[in-house]
This record gives sequence, structure tokens and C-alpha cells, in this order.
Amino acid sequence: MRAVVLRADWAPRDGETGRFDSREPERRIATRGNAAWRNPRFAVEDRPDPAATGDLVVIRVRACGICGSDVHLHERDADGYMVYPGMVGTPVTTGHEFSGTVEAIGQDVVDIAIGDPVCAEEIAWCGACLACRSGLPNNCTRLGELGFTFDGAHAELVSVRARYVWSLRPLLEAGIGEPRLFHLGALVEPAGVAFIGLFVSAAGFLPGSAIGVAGAGPIGLAAIALARAAGASRIVAFEPSRARRAMAVAMGADAAHDPRELGADGFAEIAREASRGRGIDRWVEASGARGVAERMAATLAPGGRVVLIGRGPHTIGLDPEHLIVRGASITGSIGHSGSGAFGRVIDLMAAGRLPMDKIVSGTVSLDGMVAALEDLRDREAGKTIVEP
Amino acid sequence: MRAVVLRADWAPRDGETGRFDSREPERRIATRGNAAWRNPRFAVEDRPDPAATGDLVVIRVRACGICGSDVHLHERDADGYMVYPGMVGTPVTTGHEFSGTVEAIGQDVVDIAIGDPVCAEEIAWCGACLACRSGLPNNCTRLGELGFTFDGAHAELVSVRARYVWSLRPLLEAGIGEPRLFHLGALVEPAGVAFIGLFVSAAGFLPGSAIGVAGAGPIGLAAIALARAAGASRIVAFEPSRARRAMAVAMGADAAHDPRELGADGFAEIAREASRGRGIDRWVEASGARGVAERMAATLAPGGRVVLIGRGPHTIGLDPEHLIVRGASITGSIGHSGSGAFGRVIDLMAAGRLPMDKIVSGTVSLDGMVAALEDLRDREAGKTIVEP
Amino acid sequence: MRAVVLRADWAPRDGETGRFDSREPERRIATRGNAAWRNPRFAVEDRPDPAATGDLVVIRVRACGICGSDVHLHERDADGYMVYPGMVGTPVTTGHEFSGTVEAIGQDVVDIAIGDPVCAEEIAWCGACLACRSGLPNNCTRLGELGFTFDGAHAELVSVRARYVWSLRPLLEAGIGEPRLFHLGALVEPAGVAFIGLFVSAAGFLPGSAIGVAGAGPIGLAAIALARAAGASRIVAFEPSRARRAMAVAMGADAAHDPRELGADGFAEIAREASRGRGIDRWVEASGARGVAERMAATLAPGGRVVLIGRGPHTIGLDPEHLIVRGASITGSIGHSGSGAFGRVIDLMAAGRLPMDKIVSGTVSLDGMVAALEDLRDREAGKTIVEP
Amino acid sequence: MRAVVLRADWAPRDGETGRFDSREPERRIATRGNAAWRNPRFAVEDRPDPAATGDLVVIRVRACGICGSDVHLHERDADGYMVYPGMVGTPVTTGHEFSGTVEAIGQDVVDIAIGDPVCAEEIAWCGACLACRSGLPNNCTRLGELGFTFDGAHAELVSVRARYVWSLRPLLEAGIGEPRLFHLGALVEPAGVAFIGLFVSAAGFLPGSAIGVAGAGPIGLAAIALARAAGASRIVAFEPSRARRAMAVAMGADAAHDPRELGADGFAEIAREASRGRGIDRWVEASGARGVAERMAATLAPGGRVVLIGRGPHTIGLDPEHLIVRGASITGSIGHSGSGAFGRVIDLMAAGRLPMDKIVSGTVSLDGMVAALEDLRDREAGKTIVEP
Repeated sequence: MRAVVLRADWAPRDGETGRFDSREPERRIATRGNAAWRNPRFAVEDRPDPAATGDLVVIRVRACGICGSDVHLHERDADGYMVYPGMVGTPVTTGHEFSGTVEAIGQDVVDIAIGDPVCAEEIAWCGACLACRSGLPNNCTRLGELGFTFDGAHAELVSVRARYVWSLRPLLEAGIGEPRLFHLGALVEPAGVAFIGLFVSAAGFLPGSAIGVAGAGPIGLAAIALARAAGASRIVAFEPSRARRAMAVAMGADAAHDPRELGADGFAEIAREASRGRGIDRWVEASGARGVAERMAATLAPGGRVVLIGRGPHTIGLDPEHLIVRGASITGSIGHSGSGAFGRVIDLMAAGRLPMDKIVSGTVSLDGMVAALEDLRDREAGKTIVEP
Repeated sequence: MRAVVLRADWAPRDGETGRFDSREPERRIATRGNAAWRNPRFAVEDRPDPAATGDLVVIRVRACGICGSDVHLHERDADGYMVYPGMVGTPVTTGHEFSGTVEAIGQDVVDIAIGDPVCAEEIAWCGACLACRSGLPNNCTRLGELGFTFDGAHAELVSVRARYVWSLRPLLEAGIGEPRLFHLGALVEPAGVAFIGLFVSAAGFLPGSAIGVAGAGPIGLAAIALARAAGASRIVAFEPSRARRAMAVAMGADAAHDPRELGADGFAEIAREASRGRGIDRWVEASGARGVAERMAATLAPGGRVVLIGRGPHTIGLDPEHLIVRGASITGSIGHSGSGAFGRVIDLMAAGRLPMDKIVSGTVSLDGMVAALEDLRDREAGKTIVEP
Repeated sequence: MRAVVLRADWAPRDGETGRFDSREPERRIATRGNAAWRNPRFAVEDRPDPAATGDLVVIRVRACGICGSDVHLHERDADGYMVYPGMVGTPVTTGHEFSGTVEAIGQDVVDIAIGDPVCAEEIAWCGACLACRSGLPNNCTRLGELGFTFDGAHAELVSVRARYVWSLRPLLEAGIGEPRLFHLGALVEPAGVAFIGLFVSAAGFLPGSAIGVAGAGPIGLAAIALARAAGASRIVAFEPSRARRAMAVAMGADAAHDPRELGADGFAEIAREASRGRGIDRWVEASGARGVAERMAATLAPGGRVVLIGRGPHTIGLDPEHLIVRGASITGSIGHSGSGAFGRVIDLMAAGRLPMDKIVSGTVSLDGMVAALEDLRDREAGKTIVEP
Repeated sequence: MRAVVLRADWAPRDGETGRFDSREPERRIATRGNAAWRNPRFAVEDRPDPAATGDLVVIRVRACGICGSDVHLHERDADGYMVYPGMVGTPVTTGHEFSGTVEAIGQDVVDIAIGDPVCAEEIAWCGACLACRSGLPNNCTRLGELGFTFDGAHAELVSVRARYVWSLRPLLEAGIGEPRLFHLGALVEPAGVAFIGLFVSAAGFLPGSAIGVAGAGPIGLAAIALARAAGASRIVAFEPSRARRAMAVAMGADAAHDPRELGADGFAEIAREASRGRGIDRWVEASGARGVAERMAATLAPGGRVVLIGRGPHTIGLDPEHLIVRGASITGSIGHSGSGAFGRVIDLMAAGRLPMDKIVSGTVSLDGMVAALEDLRDREAGKTIVEP
């Protein structure tokens, strides 16, 4: 089969040692990619077809998004190191926001049939560590990641364990045809991240809440769409890109502001206005930008919460009084697993409540993907989908 | 001022002793109306205008719904006793689902201004008993009830304590004019009951849930509209009245069934189909009918919940296995107070997410109300609004 | 190795069809044991040693409790059928409340070393069904059960998957030696069932609560000990056996009553007194007896909960008013998995806060177990431990 | 009656304007005491006896703690300004951690009888603002404070509204006599603050948790005692004062460390050891010291929480990765109201589970209090109680 493979040179700095892949022991995995991998390069290669053994499901990929992380895997810093800061091994086929049809199943697989339209979780939670046994699969201490530590879906075929696979049959039954079916399916993953952040990590969402979202990339846009679907009374978004602000409004934001155009008190004024003075009930930080969480903490309603999803190298300068006086919280969130999140997102899509495919701005073939990685560096586009 | 006053004869049976009203000691309050009050009769009377002292707010009533409870206050059984089983004193001005404009305020009132459009809670929680001090105002052990134990809003003027009053200014700011503004305002109360049941008593609602509602009276209809607004993936309703089934669909139900037309397994089949086989996540029992909760308990998803709101004299024959095997629950819910429920309902209405006024089927004057009480006995209509 | 093996004759009635064991396809599993298995008989047999392949851990059993379920597997009704109503296959080695030391590990096992003292969950949750992926492993729709559907720990050796195994090292580090270490380890399982019921299924336990427990078998006794450890202000127990009442007090109950000696209002009076009139915050139904849950529902505090753990063939005649007026709930609970329950129970034992081994009333060898099953039919004893 | 009265000179800086007291309009209240009040001075004065009108309860004070806040009201900075940064009006009788017996009751008071032993909340939540109506009385936006904005309990008599009063009868019924009864009663307030922080603001405490507490003043000590009562498996405390470390151990800490003696990694090592490597489940920040919350955030278990109670002028330099990777939170907590916290604390004291009076290090008369305020500046002592 053909696949987009990332290769790079092992050149550890900062004490990064890496470990070897449990699936393919000759392959090395760095905990912090940007501390070990140099000269990253993407190319379409011929790779062996994956085999459907044990509890593995082999899926023929029909759509696979290009994530901001994929762009970071491709970008190099001044020293030629990969920009991506997270866990990654090479060589690896990238791609983790995908959908397709089941091509073959291992002998231990139940409930999944050949031909089914499906998508799958990116997080390969172990199911056995203390976090997993405590109902916290997103905080698994032994996790693998599809498209980072083992081969992903920028390829004609991909294999994943059955327990990470979710059926897209509800979309089919709702009368959604191709290519929309597979575009929606490829977007369940980022929507799942927003779902976990907004409704699980920050438990206790109540309809009628005032919601703010910073960063209108795919996860921020999904947070807006989910907040709308879940009965937010008012949603404000902050995003520097004009194109993304338009998408924010299309996904349900009442207003989308350019943070660079706000005066000193602009953020607070908008929060006050959107919440009729009581403060924002849930802030979703999906930009990873410096200086945002501080302002969110300062504009919370009593009992409100900031949910941190976006990642960056900065420190938050938090005034504890903001949290104490209002009995408010800051909560970190990662991942999309548990709480039946994928299934709930799919059901919302089937019910017509989560039009995530509105954010698809273009499609490319496997061969077109490397060029697309270059184009995406300006962060202006919505979601680009690879159709192998 | 003119007011619709309920009078009846004190004729206690079954050991019912009643107590005297703390506001007007000459007036008696029965814990169970149908065990004490005989020959109930409604009439329009001239009553003194309420005074705006202390923390009282006097409101000029613009709309006040006729509740099923009002119909029960008016109906007589074979012995001439009032049918209503709950707490009630007479003489009393009825009416508790209302809206209007502020006419006058007492000297201790803050945050409320003359002329403001407002509505108010029916439950006069004491704020001082252990339940109130535990965050459970709906389970207040010393509560009074507007329109039952003290004078309500089927009148030109009504007075309530400031802490029960909520501003309708968000509707005004959303551009909603009369009479819609006041119709929506009068329906905040039943919507608040459904809000507390669905999102507070049965905590943990997640978008993408499968919801079932039995009984499409105003509270059941509000539950449907709220479930829709909160991201239910699928909503099924059960209601014998054809007119109410149509309203259920108008409020957002995917399907509305006549329970009398279902075969032995019909209920379970519908639950299975609506939830793709996993069971219903939240059942709302708003019919008060015999034999419903049993079927709900038998068709729950893992971790699912039945919320009991509708009241009746029957016993539920509960098979404990249904709850044990699925880790499921049955929860009782009463009232609309706490959790900022009224404010959240108003914000949802302002955001256009809760079109409760679609259930208004007619308006009458104070003088027309007694006749309307007769007409409403068939339980076919939606909500009739009194406009004084 | 030597093992206590249960054999019976396949004689299905009531449409019971059974299914075949996925591990050993020649073995049949009945969903309802008492509808299929006749002439159950226990005997010590020689069986092949289990192999440590894949993610399996082979454990040398040091202690394994005899559960009420084991007694029911052994008992016969008038027609010679097994009394046990749950899922069971034969032939099978029984025993699921156990501890021991790791004898061997499969090649995929991490974090567990040969020689470690351990115990394990009985519930073999699949980790892949919708319930498991929703954080509800106890409600797994494809579960197996150690000692029922696959071979258990009334044997010299037992094999379980690594993800069900928990280290008892905290007990060792707390200076707890043999045999106490292994007795406590064998009692983690019933304590885990009470933990899930009291703190997870009935979420929101607050210190200072008034607690009631019906049934002082091992799970009820564990509920008492856990409620004490978790800061219950007052605990009342109900249990007909004098010996068990004494154990209830030893585990921390403030009082233990014989339900047969209570007058008509005795139950309610005790609840009132124990809670200073406000009602019981958490009732634990661990007796499975008829007519208990009704009284619990009638004596709840505002926001209180009845947790159903004990199973029986009866129906509960529930007055919905009890739940509605107090905003109270009835919740079913099953299992001991998830929420890190085993680890938390072990940590509490290590901290000296959960003296479960006080309920051990005797030990027997494998050879003595069949006789013990006979003796235990009177339900008077505490926990009998098999030491292979 | 005799009372300890705080007087100071109105000398606003920093734009502090103050407002007038709604009870006594001639008295001014500063939002930030240290921005307005100069030359604070305490003296015993003769003041009129409070009157028992409306819903007021007049209490003869038997014990009233001296709080760290009281010391700050007395201390002056280099410019002669009061050190206390919070809301305060003068002249005012200080004292808010108190108990006594009911001397007289207003005509609207129910459930409280003359002679009852009682204590009362310090926070005079309004019961009517949006926060109060949302179940968040501690975040009331219109609150008054006993002993700060209206007269407190460093006096022979004090009057408070009935809804803030809690009966100490459970202590009496548990056989607790004087002076212990009143000492415990005076310590319900700080224990209530710790209760709200540990169990309500940071909801979801599970027995078996690993707990850390920084700052072993009365609130930190109460957090330790409550964590112990609630089934913490392991509790570590950090406190520079040797005397307070000893009290921390007496209240149930497994270990108490001097933070000044820890090396760079000492904090993290202790956290790791106390939690067997998984991280701390709940950190309570009760020191208000700079640089503590950062270390707490870095050493949380998956799903863990830092609860901020201690207040100070510093900023927290928060690394968002600590919260994101572990799905962890930082939550602010203030106040002791709601959730029946006072009643639950009293019930725990009555059950012998909360020996707060162990922290009492001395008693003084009203006349001895001013000298005591001087002595307490070294922050070494436990709780000093004024017995009027």
C-alpha cells in the first residue's frame, strides 16, 4: 500500500533518550520530538499492507485530516530540528483524524463487520495502568498515539485495535452520503477533544451558560459547535485569522473578535457583555497562546471554569484571588477517549446538530499532502482532508 | 384590584388538621387539599392592592398561565371535595406561572426597578431550614407556594419577595416584544421545573444522549424543548392526546407515540430503536400515570436515569435488577429553584433556543378564567394564559 | 495442581440456551445458572497448571474466601437444580475473593513481578464495549466472571489477565505480615463492591452523613467499615443474625438491630433518631430481602440515596412521593471495578482504616471446602477463607 | 454590654472609596481595609445590648477565637495603615469564630430556643443575588461579614440572623460538657472553611486519597483533621512553625515537613512517596505563601486538584502542561456556607471524629485580648480563645 511516511534523524539534545517501540523494537520513540529528531521529511512510500490479526481491524482510509500537529512534525526550527514538542517515533506513517471502511478483521474482533464505515480514537490507552483503571484513559501513563508512535492513516490502509474503533453507521442511517459521511467521520477526533474538554474535564456544564473560546482552529471550532449544540446562551470567540473568525460564526459563535484589535479592557468588556455582567461560565483555551488564560481567569462567573486544551511553552501568571473569590477553577484537558465521547459526537452529527464538515476547506491526495503541509503553515485555512 | 379568588369549606377528613397561615393567621392551610376542602369555587373579586413593604415587589400581572394544578383546585370529587392533593389554603388568589412589570418596590429591594419586566418563582423557599442551607431549596421543609398558600397572580397585581423575582430584560434586549415577551415570561416556571429535573436532579446530562419523555403537558413539553436545546441526539415522547403529540413534535421530539396504541413490547422497542440498542440515557416521567416508571426502569442505558416529576397516587412496581445490572437510578424531582434555573431558562429563551410560547393555545381575561377551568378538564389543550 | 471443581448436568428449562465459553469452546455457560444446571457437585481434582502467556499472570493462591454465591452454586432446589441464579459455566474452578503471590507472568505483562503479593478483580470487563468505553466497566455488556465463567481461585494456582491484578505491596510496606496480609487481600473484592456502591454509584458522599445498612454479610460489613472510614457521623445496621450484628458493631456501626424485632414504625424511628430527624443520607441495601428498599425510600434525607446491591427475586413497591418530595434517588450498583477502587481499598487497609479481616471466622484447606459449603448454609458465620 | 471594639481613621488611598453600612448608615465600610483605614486600635468598650427583633437571635458569647484576620486588623504597616486587605468597616466589634447560648430571639425566629448552645456562620450571604440563587452562597456578591462589616462576637452578646445560626445540641447529646462544648463550637467556623474547600469546591473526594496540606494554621489543621476523618490514606503537611507541625501530626498528618529545610526536589519527592508515585489527589493551599501552588500543580495525580484557600498578594507561575497532561485542576475556595457544612462539622465533632479543640493553646478574657493580639504576631501558637 501507499503511505505518507515521516522520517528524521536521531540527534538527541537536552538529555532526551527516547525508548524503543513495543510493536517494532527497531524503531525509536522520543518523548519530546523537538529534542531528538532532526531534518524531518515527508514522502509517499510503498509499505506492506497491515495484517488483521488478533483484535486488529484493518481499515481502508477514505478521509484523513491534516492536523496542526502534522504541520509541526514537518516544520523545522533554526537548527533543523522538528518543531513538534510531543511524543513521536520515526519512521512513521502520520495521520490520526480519519475515517474509512473496514477491510479485514482479526479473529478476536466482535461487533465490527467488513464494509462498515468507521473512525477510530488516536489515543491508544493501555486499559491497564492506574489512570485507565480509574476511568481516566486520556491520562493513561503508557499510551501510544496513532500517527505518532505507531503507523497512522495518511495511507491507503491503517490497522487499529478494535477497542479504539467506532461505527459511523448512525451517519449512514441518517441519510448522509459520501463524501460528507467520511469528512464528518474524520472530524470526530477533534470534536471528541472538545467534547471531553467542555463536558467531562470541566464537568457540570448547564444549558444557558455563557461560553468563551480562544483559538478557532479545528478544536476551538468544535468547542463552539458543541457549546451551541449543548444550549449555550451566548458564545464569544477570539481568533486573529479573519477566515477562522468567519468559520467561528458559521459554527455558532454569536461574535468572533480579533484579539489584536482589543484595547486593554476589551477582553473583559466582551466577557461582561456576553454574560450580562456575571462572568463567563466556561472558557475554552484552544489557542495555546501566551497571556490568554490570565484574562480568562479574571472574567469567570462564580463557579466558572477555564478549560486548557491548547498547548504552548509559556507560563500562566495566575492571580489566585480570581479563583478564590469566585470559587472558580482552571482545568487541564487532553484527549478524546472515555465517556463514550466518540459515540456521542457521532450521534450529534447524525442528528444534524454538529455540522463539523463546514470547516473542511479542501481535499488533497496522498501525493498532494507534502505540498499541503507547506501551505498550511500560515494557519489560515480550515481543515484540509487527505483522500488517499 | 380584581383577582380570581378560590374559596372552599373547611371539612377535614382523614385526620387532616391544617395549620394557620403565617402571613394571615385567620387563614387555614391544609397539607392535603383533598382531605380538607369541600365545595371549591372560583370567582372574580375585588381585593385590596398589595403593599410594597420590606423586600416585597409588587408586580402588575401581564400574563399568568392556568396550570393543571389550578384545574385540580377547581374540580370536585364525588363527595364534593377538591381534587387537588397538595398543600393549599383558602381563600386564596390562584396563579403561579406569571409575568408582568414591576409596579412598586419595598425599601429593602435592590437590583429591581419600577417598570422592569419580570417573572417569579412559585416556591417560597425559606432560605433557613437545613435543606435550604444544604443547597436544596426545592426540598425546603418550610415552604410556601404562590397561588396556593399565599395570594398568586390570577389578579391585576401580585406581591412577591425580591429574592424570588427574575428579570425578563434579556428577552427585551433580544428584541422580543409584547405579547410574546410576557407569554414566554409566564412559561419560565414550568420550564424551570423541567430544567431542574433534567439537568440538576438527574445531574450529568451529556450532549448526544437519548431522551424519553412521558406526558406532553407543559412540563413534559418543556423537557422536550430543553433536551433538544441541550443536545439530545434523539427524543421520543409518549402522550395519549393527539394535540399534545403534535406539540411534542413541534418542541423537538423526533417521534411522539400514543401509549394506548403500543403492544406489549412497544415501549421497549421504541426505546431500543431511539438509542440504537443501548437504552435510554434519561427518562422524564411527567405524566403521573400508573405503570410508566416500571417500563422506563426496564429500558435504561448503563448509568441511565429515570426522573420522576409527575405525581399520582400509584405505587411503582420496581424490579431492582433493572437498576442493579445497569448501574442505573430513579430520581425524584420537584420545584424550579436553585442552580440559577430561572435565569438560565430566560437566557435560553432570549437566545431563541426555547420556543416555549408555541404551546400557548389561547388567552382569556380574568373574567373568562372560570369558564376556561371547565374547558381545560379534557386535558387536550396546550397552555391557556390569563391576561388580566 | 489441585483445585475445587464444580460440575453439574446440562438440563435447560425456561428457554435457557447458554452459550459456549470463548476460552474453552467445549464448555457451556448458562446466563441463569438455576435454569440450566442440575445436580451441582464440588470435588477436589487434579487440573493442569495454568500457563503464563500473553498478558496472563499466574498466581499461587494463598487465601480465597467462600462467597455466598459459592454456597448458592452448591445448594440444590427441590428439583435438584443449582440455586445460583447468575451466569455460570461448568466444569469450573470456583473462587473469586482471593490473594496470593505471583508465580509467573506472560511476555506482555509490565509492572508486575514474580513474587509480588497480589489480588485481582472478579469482573473480567471487556474494555471494548460501549459501557466500558463510557467508564462503566461494572456494567460491561460482554463480561466474564472469575470463578463462574472461567476458572477461579479455589485452587493452588489461578491465572488472570494483568489488567485485573492489583499489588498488595502497600500492605507489606505497612508492616502487615502473613496470614493477615493474605486475608486482607482476599477481602479487597467484597470491600471493592461496597466502595463502588457507596462512593461511586451513589456519588456525592459527604463526611458527616447518616448511613444505614441492611444486611451484615461481608458486603454490608464492608459498607459499614467504609462508611466509618469515610466520616459517617452515625451508622445504623439491620441484620437478623446475632453473630453478624456483633460483627457490624465491630466494624463501626453505632447500633445493629434485628429487623424481626422491630414494630411497625421501628425502622422509621431508628432512621429518624440516627439522623436527628432529617432522614438517612445513604442507605445501603445489602440483604437482598423483600420489603427493605421500600422502608429505606420512606426515610431518606433531602437529596438522599438508596443504593441497591443485594439481589433477590422480589419487586420493590415504591411510593414515588418519597423520592419526589425529597429530591431523592434509588441507585443500583454492581461490581468493584473502575475508579481505582481496589487500589483505594488496599491503601485504606494499609493505613489501618479498614480492618476487614475482623470478619474472618475460620480457615479451611481445599479438602475441607466442600464440608464448609454445607456448614455455611445457615448464613451465621463471617467469612471463611480457603487456604490452599 | 462589654465588647472589644476596633476603631481606625478613614484615610483612603488608591482610589478606595468605601460604602456606607446598610445597617448603620453612619458607618463606613472599605472594600480593601489596608487602602483606607489608618491607626487601627482595639479597646474594650461599653456598648448597647443588641435587640432581638425580626429574625435576629441574640447570643451570649461563651467562646470566640482570635483569627489570623483579627491579628491583621490590629497590625499596622510602615505608614500606620491596617495590614488587613479585606472588607472591613469601623467602628466594629470584631470576632467571628464563636459559640454561646441563646439569650433572646426575635418574633420571626423558629427552631431556635432560648438557652440553646449555638454557633453561627461568619458570612452573611444575602440569599437573593444570582450567586446565592445558584447555590453558591460563599460567592455571594452582596455579602456582609460578622466581625468585619457588622458587630461580631468579641463581646458579651452578639446578634445574628437566625438563618446563620446552627445548634450545638449534638455535642451536648454526645456528652460533651463545658468548656469543651464551647471551644469546639467556636472552631466550627474554621473547620467549615476547610470542609467547603476539601469536599465541595473540590468535589469528588474519594476515601483512600493521598492528601497534602500547606500551612498548619487553624484552617490547614482542620483540613488535616477532616481528610483523616474522611478516609485519606496518607496525609503530608508543610509548615515552618515547629509547634504547628506538632499540631499537624496530632490532627492526623502522617508527616509534617518544614518547607525551609527541603532541597530543590524535596517537595516532589515527598509527594511521590506519600502517593506511591501516582501524585497527590488533593492539595490544600492554606498558607497563602508565594511559590507553593506551583509545586502543588507539578505533583498532582491524574484527575487531581489543588484547592486554594490561603490568600496573599502573589501571582502563581503556572505551567499549563501540569494540568493538561494529568487532566488536573486548580480550584479556589472561600467561605463555609452551603452544603450543610456547619451541621456536618458539628455532627463529626459529636461523633468524636474531629478533635478540633486540640488546637486550642490558651484562653483570655475580653480585657486580655488586646495583649493577646500582640502575642499572636509570631504565628506560632494554635488557637487562642476569648472567653468573655
